[in-house]
Amino acid sequence: MKTLEHTISDGVTERSFILGEVPGVLWTPTTVTAPAPLVLMGHGGGLHKRSPDLVARARRYVARYGFSVAAIDSPGHGERPRSVRDQQWVAKMLQARESGRPMGPIIAEYNGSLAERAIGEWRATIDALQELPEIGPDAPIGYSGMTLASAIGLPLITVEPRISAAVVGGVFVYDVLMAAARMITIPIRFLLPWDDHEIDRQTGLDLFDAFGSTEKSLLATTGGHHELPSYVADEAARFFVRQFGRSAAVTT
Amino acid sequence: MKTLEHTISDGVTERSFILGEVPGVLWTPTTVTAPAPLVLMGHGGGLHKRSPDLVARARRYVARYGFSVAAIDSPGHGERPRSVRDQQWVAKMLQARESGRPMGPIIAEYNGSLAERAIGEWRATIDALQELPEIGPDAPIGYSGMTLASAIGLPLITVEPRISAAVVGGVFVYDVLMAAARMITIPIRFLLPWDDHEIDRQTGLDLFDAFGSTEKSLLATTGGHHELPSYVADEAARFFVRQFGRSAAVTT
Repeated sequence: MKTLEHTISDGVTERSFILGEVPGVLWTPTTVTAPAPLVLMGHGGGLHKRSPDLVARARRYVARYGFSVAAIDSPGHGERPRSVRDQQWVAKMLQARESGRPMGPIIAEYNGSLAERAIGEWRATIDALQELPEIGPDAPIGYSGMTLASAIGLPLITVEPRISAAVVGGVFVYDVLMAAARMITIPIRFLLPWDDHEIDRQTGLDLFDAFGSTEKSLLATTGGHHELPSYVADEAARFFVRQFGRSAAVTT
Repeated sequence: MKTLEHTISDGVTERSFILGEVPGVLWTPTTVTAPAPLVLMGHGGGLHKRSPDLVARARRYVARYGFSVAAIDSPGHGERPRSVRDQQWVAKMLQARESGRPMGPIIAEYNGSLAERAIGEWRATIDALQELPEIGPDAPIGYSGMTLASAIGLPLITVEPRISAAVVGGVFVYDVLMAAARMITIPIRFLLPWDDHEIDRQTGLDLFDAFGSTEKSLLATTGGHHELPSYVADEAARFFVRQFGRSAAVTT
């Protein structure tokens, strides 16, 4: 892992890094007494590791809850070149949307392929982050991210025992994700935009129901795919605080 | 309203009161600078105003979030005599449960009758509480309560404009409640025990869907009818803090 520029503001240290061909960002509390819990924050489809919403949430998690947060660009997203195959999937999706044909089969193929590639990248990122003294091998690790980030996160969790809690949801559901949910037993907070016009509500309820976790909760909120109320991120942060049993900045 | 004994502990002033034939309890912050938001806390079926869970939640809302909390006994509950008619409904419910016959029609009748009687009692309680200097006419008012408390709360909210936010859920659903939900437009947090074996999950989802509120959220948690995780009450308190825009004891 090569660390690039690094800035400090409002008690948050932000540094860019690159690991192989994967660029990422790490946000950590500037002053900490003990390694903070680490939240891996995935970005949505078409977005990237520095999308404004993600950055705002990451900085808030660090400043308010004392977490560290890491984000990486998914294959073909952000600073990473999009392969010819990925370009074809994206073109097919847009064509399907415009002509009113079902996008489901294309999303399942494209997201499935992205997830296959991203899983190893996230695992290598965890390896590298655990080498840093600010993180270390003992910090509890959570995963957070909706839509594409959930399509990547669910299969990732099934093979990565270091992730011990996750916030997911708002995702287009296909068989691989249902199968992953059934294998997952870590605590889950599932976010469901109740008025999502792109994703059938019942498939979200079915996915939540499929998780094998003893502790899981579903938070459904009014609004569509990209209209999550701002308090949802704070409730998600408190979910991680409950799971990790500690937080540098807040008590629950 | 006649105030009876009164105790102070841990920053919480607790006093019993009686209004007509309805006994109640009021918990207020012992030290306040401005009138605190008031949460009306309903009890579940078969329980009462001093059920241990309710008291613990009420005291926590006062001590931690700076609210005032009021609870009253529903007709035929707690200190109040159960009428012959109510006794017959209860007997019928128990018989139905034992013999495996559907309890739904009896619950709808019994809860509907309790709600009709309780609505005026809650409204008179609000009138009386607003006369107290600790509450006053300007404190925002929320309603909180599952099961029977929701069966009473939903029709209450449709006729009581002073209630401006509510936490409800886990309730046996019948037509009157669906109709009430459609009329309700205040912010709602709806609690759904995901593994409730007594109440069909879909009826809870349908009831949540029916609310006319622009701002509503559903929190589903693993476990049955009486197995709500403890953090749910804190998330509900923060919901009230968001709605009322202030809180004496906590920041969100």
